[in-house]
Amino acid sequence: MAELGQNLAVVVHRAGDLRLVRAGGAGPEGAGEVLLRMHSVGICGSDVHYWQHGRIGDFVVKNPMVLGHEASGTVIKVGAGVTHLKPGDRVAIEPGVPRETDEFCKTGRYNLSPTIFFCATPPDDGNLCRYYKHSASYCYKLPDNVTFEEGALVEPLSVGIHACKRAGVTLGSRVFVSGSGPIGLVNVIVAKMMGATEVVVTDLSAPRLQTAKEVGADYTIQVKNETPQEVAAKVESLLGCMPDITLECTGVQACIQASIYATRSGGTLVLVGLGPEMVTVPIVNAAVREVDIRGIFRYCNTWPVAISLLASKRINIKPLVTHRFPLEKALEAFETTKRGEGVKVMLKCDPTNQNP
Amino acid sequence: MAELGQNLAVVVHRAGDLRLVRAGGAGPEGAGEVLLRMHSVGICGSDVHYWQHGRIGDFVVKNPMVLGHEASGTVIKVGAGVTHLKPGDRVAIEPGVPRETDEFCKTGRYNLSPTIFFCATPPDDGNLCRYYKHSASYCYKLPDNVTFEEGALVEPLSVGIHACKRAGVTLGSRVFVSGSGPIGLVNVIVAKMMGATEVVVTDLSAPRLQTAKEVGADYTIQVKNETPQEVAAKVESLLGCMPDITLECTGVQACIQASIYATRSGGTLVLVGLGPEMVTVPIVNAAVREVDIRGIFRYCNTWPVAISLLASKRINIKPLVTHRFPLEKALEAFETTKRGEGVKVMLKCDPTNQNP
Amino acid sequence: MAELGQNLAVVVHRAGDLRLVRAGGAGPEGAGEVLLRMHSVGICGSDVHYWQHGRIGDFVVKNPMVLGHEASGTVIKVGAGVTHLKPGDRVAIEPGVPRETDEFCKTGRYNLSPTIFFCATPPDDGNLCRYYKHSASYCYKLPDNVTFEEGALVEPLSVGIHACKRAGVTLGSRVFVSGSGPIGLVNVIVAKMMGATEVVVTDLSAPRLQTAKEVGADYTIQVKNETPQEVAAKVESLLGCMPDITLECTGVQACIQASIYATRSGGTLVLVGLGPEMVTVPIVNAAVREVDIRGIFRYCNTWPVAISLLASKRINIKPLVTHRFPLEKALEAFETTKRGEGVKVMLKCDPTNQNP
Amino acid sequence: MAELGQNLAVVVHRAGDLRLVRAGGAGPEGAGEVLLRMHSVGICGSDVHYWQHGRIGDFVVKNPMVLGHEASGTVIKVGAGVTHLKPGDRVAIEPGVPRETDEFCKTGRYNLSPTIFFCATPPDDGNLCRYYKHSASYCYKLPDNVTFEEGALVEPLSVGIHACKRAGVTLGSRVFVSGSGPIGLVNVIVAKMMGATEVVVTDLSAPRLQTAKEVGADYTIQVKNETPQEVAAKVESLLGCMPDITLECTGVQACIQASIYATRSGGTLVLVGLGPEMVTVPIVNAAVREVDIRGIFRYCNTWPVAISLLASKRINIKPLVTHRFPLEKALEAFETTKRGEGVKVMLKCDPTNQNP
Repeated sequence: MAELGQNLAVVVHRAGDLRLVRAGGAGPEGAGEVLLRMHSVGICGSDVHYWQHGRIGDFVVKNPMVLGHEASGTVIKVGAGVTHLKPGDRVAIEPGVPRETDEFCKTGRYNLSPTIFFCATPPDDGNLCRYYKHSASYCYKLPDNVTFEEGALVEPLSVGIHACKRAGVTLGSRVFVSGSGPIGLVNVIVAKMMGATEVVVTDLSAPRLQTAKEVGADYTIQVKNETPQEVAAKVESLLGCMPDITLECTGVQACIQASIYATRSGGTLVLVGLGPEMVTVPIVNAAVREVDIRGIFRYCNTWPVAISLLASKRINIKPLVTHRFPLEKALEAFETTKRGEGVKVMLKCDPTNQNP
Repeated sequence: MAELGQNLAVVVHRAGDLRLVRAGGAGPEGAGEVLLRMHSVGICGSDVHYWQHGRIGDFVVKNPMVLGHEASGTVIKVGAGVTHLKPGDRVAIEPGVPRETDEFCKTGRYNLSPTIFFCATPPDDGNLCRYYKHSASYCYKLPDNVTFEEGALVEPLSVGIHACKRAGVTLGSRVFVSGSGPIGLVNVIVAKMMGATEVVVTDLSAPRLQTAKEVGADYTIQVKNETPQEVAAKVESLLGCMPDITLECTGVQACIQASIYATRSGGTLVLVGLGPEMVTVPIVNAAVREVDIRGIFRYCNTWPVAISLLASKRINIKPLVTHRFPLEKALEAFETTKRGEGVKVMLKCDPTNQNP
Repeated sequence: MAELGQNLAVVVHRAGDLRLVRAGGAGPEGAGEVLLRMHSVGICGSDVHYWQHGRIGDFVVKNPMVLGHEASGTVIKVGAGVTHLKPGDRVAIEPGVPRETDEFCKTGRYNLSPTIFFCATPPDDGNLCRYYKHSASYCYKLPDNVTFEEGALVEPLSVGIHACKRAGVTLGSRVFVSGSGPIGLVNVIVAKMMGATEVVVTDLSAPRLQTAKEVGADYTIQVKNETPQEVAAKVESLLGCMPDITLECTGVQACIQASIYATRSGGTLVLVGLGPEMVTVPIVNAAVREVDIRGIFRYCNTWPVAISLLASKRINIKPLVTHRFPLEKALEAFETTKRGEGVKVMLKCDPTNQNP
Repeated sequence: MAELGQNLAVVVHRAGDLRLVRAGGAGPEGAGEVLLRMHSVGICGSDVHYWQHGRIGDFVVKNPMVLGHEASGTVIKVGAGVTHLKPGDRVAIEPGVPRETDEFCKTGRYNLSPTIFFCATPPDDGNLCRYYKHSASYCYKLPDNVTFEEGALVEPLSVGIHACKRAGVTLGSRVFVSGSGPIGLVNVIVAKMMGATEVVVTDLSAPRLQTAKEVGADYTIQVKNETPQEVAAKVESLLGCMPDITLECTGVQACIQASIYATRSGGTLVLVGLGPEMVTVPIVNAAVREVDIRGIFRYCNTWPVAISLLASKRINIKPLVTHRFPLEKALEAFETTKRGEGVKVMLKCDPTNQNP
C-alpha cells in the first residue's frame, strides 16, 4: 500500500521536544491485527504532560514515542483470523491491549495487567498519525449514527464509566463530584445516565461550574477558602443528606479530605484524580463509617457500553470538541491545548475527510 | 378527633362481595405509628382479584378486609417516639411492615420476612379508607414537588425498581421486557432510567405496545403464534444481539420459555409476572449458558429511590392515571378497573381535596 | 525430538468405536504454546458417553477425536513468548482455551465464549495421549508438594469450586447437596472448605451416602419414594432450618423440584447436574421466595484456587483415585469406568513414570 | 423476683474510677425484651480504655456507666411478643441494638445506624452485672454444645467475621494480617475458615507471632525497623505473590502504609485497627492499582454465623480464655487485663455456676 510510505506522526523525543515526523510505513499487520487509517484523535492532558515533562511518574520517555490515545479510524486491512471487522469499518480504538493472558485478564480486570500495551505510555507508541496497527479485539465498530469524533471521545467517556461503575452509581444515587474539569464533567454526565438523581459539583472556577450545570449537575459549589469539613457541610446542606457516592477528580489533598468527610456512612469514595504520592487523610473517619475508598486505573470493558450509549442518542458529547486542527498543524494544536483553551482539541488525521 | 368517627372504607367480605362501609375510628396511634388522612389510593389488579375470587394463592379472605395498598396521605397525629414526621407532612406509604426483626430484616431483605404485615393481603387490612394508621418508619415524606398521586404510584414503580435492581440493569444494558401491561411498562421506564440503552417489548396487543413505545421502549414485537424460539430470534434480530437482561412480566409458560431462549449467556432473567404454580421450562438451556433466573417478591428499599426519582422530574408517571373517582364511588371505580379500561384508576379519599 | 513419532492416543471414531492409535507427532509448538509429556489423565463420565453414544447434546463426534480432559504432564518445549513456564515444569492443564478475546473473555467469564477450544469436546482433541500441545496460559505450574494425579483432579475439583462460587457459599452457610456421585462429593468437599457449617446430602444409594459422610457431609438422607416436598421437609428437619444454598447434582426433575422447595427464601439453587432438556418445576415457589436459580457451564478461574488449596494440604483428594492403568491398557480402563467400579480411574501416560 | 434486688454491676464513673456497685433491679422487661441472668462476660480493651481515660474519641463517660459487651447468659423472663426465646434458654448477646428502623437498618447495615444502642458505649450501659435486660431480637440461642464462654467470645469473633466478609476472603485467598494481637488472631482464624490458603502475619513481638502460628498462620514476620516497602517485600517473598487481601489490625501509620504497598493490584485492604485520626498514606499507589480500602465499624449479621461455626466444632476458641474471675473480683480482673497478662479475661457473673 503505497500511501503507507507517507505516514505522518506526532512524536515526543524528550521533555519539550515535540515533532511532526514523516514516519515509515506501519508494516504488515500480524494475525489478529487491523491496519487503520486514523481519522480523529483527541489531545489528552497526559499527551501534553509527556511533551512538557518527558514523564508521568515512573513512566519516562526514553526513546521517541508517538503520542495519542483518544482515537478513531477506518479499517483498511485485516490480519489473519480477524472475523468481526472488515476493510471500511469505522472503529473506536481502546488504547490498552493486554500482552499476556494473566490472571487479571482471566478475571475481567485486564486494565491491571502489568505488561499491558498502552498507546502513548512509554515505551508504547500512540496513534496520533496517519496509519496505525492495533489489535482487532480492541477495535470496536461504530454504528452509522456515531461520528468519528464521538468514537474518539469514547476514551474520556470511559474514565467516567469506569469510575461510576466502581462507585456503584445506581438509580437514586446522590453523588458529589469534586472538581469540574473535563474528567469531572464526564463523571457528571455518566452518573446521571446511570440513574443518579442529584449531583453536586465543586470547583474553584465559576465558569467550570457553569459548564457542570450545563451537562446536568443539579447543584454547584464554588469553593474558596473553606476547610474540608466546611465543604462537606455545604454538600450535605445542598443535597439535604450526605451523598452516597463521591467522585474525587482533583487529586488535591484538601479535596480528598473533604470527600471523606462528605460521604455518607456506608458509601463509596472513588479517587479519579491523582495528585501527590503521599497524602494525609482522616482515615479513621472513613473507616469507622465504612466509607469505602476505591481508585481507578484507566478502564476496562467500557467501549461497548459507551458506543451503545452514544448510539442511543441519550447523551450529546459533541459540544466537548471546541477546536479542530488538521494533523499537519499538530504543534499548533498542542500549543492551544497547553494554553488551556476550550475543552477538547481534536486532530484530524485523514486529509481526505476532516469532518467530525 | 371527631372526624375519625366518620371513617369510610372499601371492604371485601368474600369473593364477589365488595362493600363501601362506614367503619369505626382508626383508634389511638401506638408508639412508632402515625395516623393518616388518606388522599389517593390506586386500585391494583390484586385488589380486583380478591374481590372477584376471594383469594390469591394461599392468601384467602376469611374475614372482611379493607382493600388498597398503593397509597398516600397526610399525617394528622404521631405516636410516641416518632421524630422524622409531624402533623401536616404529606407521605407515601410502603404497605409492607415487618412484625419481627428476623434475619431477613437484619440482612436488608425485609420483604421476605414470613410474618410481615402487608396492606390488603389477608388477614391484614389495607388503606382504601379515610383514616389509617401505619408504622411511621414505613411512611416517607413527599417533597413539595411530588403530588399525592405520584406518591401513590410509588408502589407500582417499586415493582419495576426492585425487578431492575435484582436484574442488575446498568449503563448499556440491552433489555427484553416480556409483556406490556402496567408492570411491563413500569419496567421499561425504570430500565431506561438505570441506563439501559435498548429495550425491546413484546405483547399480544398492538395498543399496549404503542404505550410501551410512548414510555420509552426502543423496539416492540407484536407476538402472534410464534414459538418461544422464534420470539427469542426476533428479539435478537431487533437488538442486533441477545439481551443481557430479560424481565418477564406475564407469567405465561410460553413467555418464560421465550425469555430463557432469548437471554444472552451469562445474563439474567427476572420473573416478575406470576402464572401457574408448575411450568415446563428449558432449564438445561438456561443452566449451561449460566443465565440466572431470579424472582421478586414485592420489593424492599425502593420508596426513597422512587421518591428521589420523582422529585428529580426525570420521569413523568402522571399520565398513568387515567381515571379518578371519589372514595364514595369506589364500587364504580372497581367496576371500571375490572373492565380493563385505562391504565390506573385512582380513588380520592379526602373529600376536601380531590386534586392529583 | 524422535520420541514424538511414537505418540499414542485414545481416540473415539464414532459411537461404540474406541481405539488406541499410534498417532503422528504433536507437530511444532506455536507462539504461546507448550509441548507436554502427559503424565496422568482421569477418565470422565463424558469420555465414556462420547464412546458409548457418539454425542452429548449438540456436540457430535463426526471425525475421530482424542478423548481426555482431566490431565497433568510435564513441559518439554515452550513456544515463542512463553515466559512463565520452562521445560521440566510439572503442570495441570485447564482444558478450555478461548480462541477469541470476545466480551465474555474481557469480562472474566471466558467459559461462556462460544468459540472456545475445549479438550475432548467435538471437534477438539483431548489429551489422553503421550504428547500434547496446549496454550501455555492455560497450563498451571504444580508446586512440588502436589502430585500429578492431584493435578489431573483439579478438573473435577474445579466443577465444585465454580458451583460453590456461583452459589455464594461462605462462612456459616447451610448447604444441601442433592446427589452423592463424584460431582456431589466434590461439592461437599469444596462447600466445607469455603466455610459451610452444615452440609446435608441426599442420594438413592446408601454406599454413596457413606462416602459423602467420609468426605465431610454432616447429614445424609437416603431417598426412596418421597415426594419432592417430603425430601425438602427432611432436609429442613435435619438442619433445623432450610438450607441457604442447594447444589443440585443429579439433573433429575424430581430432584430439581425438591431443591426448589428445600431452599430458604432469599437463597440460591445451583444446577450442577444436567438432565432432560425440558423440566417441569414449581417456578412460582422459587420466584416469590426470591430463590435464585443459577446454572454452571464448566468453570473459569478455578485452577489457581484449586492448586493453592491442594498445596495447602487442607484437603486430601488422593483417595478419589481408585484405579490406575497404563495408557497401553486404556480400553480396559474405559471398560472398568463403564461398569461404574470405584470412583476415579486414572490413566498413566508416561511409561517411564507411573507414580501418582 | 426478689433476687433482682441483689444486682451487682461493674461501673465506670470517670477516668480512673471503676467500682463494683450494688445496683437496683433491672426493672420490668418491656415488649420484645428478655431479662437475663448473666453468666460470662469478657473484658475488652475498650472497657479498660473507658476506665483509664474516661473516653474513646467522641464517646465520653459523663455519667456512671456499666461496662461489658462480650457476654452470654440465661433467659429468666420474656417480655410481650417474644416468641423465639423462653426462660431457661442460654443465649449470646449482640451488644448493638438499633433504636430506629432507618435506612441503614432497612438495607442490612444496622451497625451504621447513628442512633444505635450499644452496650458500654456512653451513655449506654453494658452487661457486666448479674441481671440485664436486652432486646430479644439481639439475643441468640446457644446450642447445647456451645459453652457460655464461647457465647461471650462470639463478640470478638464477630470482629473477624465482619472484617473478613468486608474483605471478601474466599477459597484460595492469600491473606496478610498486620498485627498479631487478639483481633489479629481472630482474623487469622476466620480467614482460614473462609478458605484462605495462605496467611502471613506480622508483629513486633515474637511470642504473639508464635500464637499466630498456633491458631493457623502459615508464615510470620517479626518486624523490626524495616520500611513499609520492605515489610511489603517480605510479605510477597514469603507468599510467592502479593496477598489478595490485607487485614490491618494495628492502626499504626507505618503499618497502614505497608499494607497498601503489600496488597495485590485489584485486591482489598480492610482497616480493622484504629489509630490516629489523620494518617499519611501512599494513596496514589492504592488508587492506580485499584486496591480498595475499606473500614469496619463493629459488625452486623455475625452472631448466627459465629454460633453455627462454634456448634460445628470446626474451630476451638476456648484456649483464648486465659483468666477467670468471679464478678465479685471484677476490679482485680481489670487490673490483670490492664497489665496485659494472657489473652482474654472472663468474668463469671453467676455465683451458682462458674463453669466455662
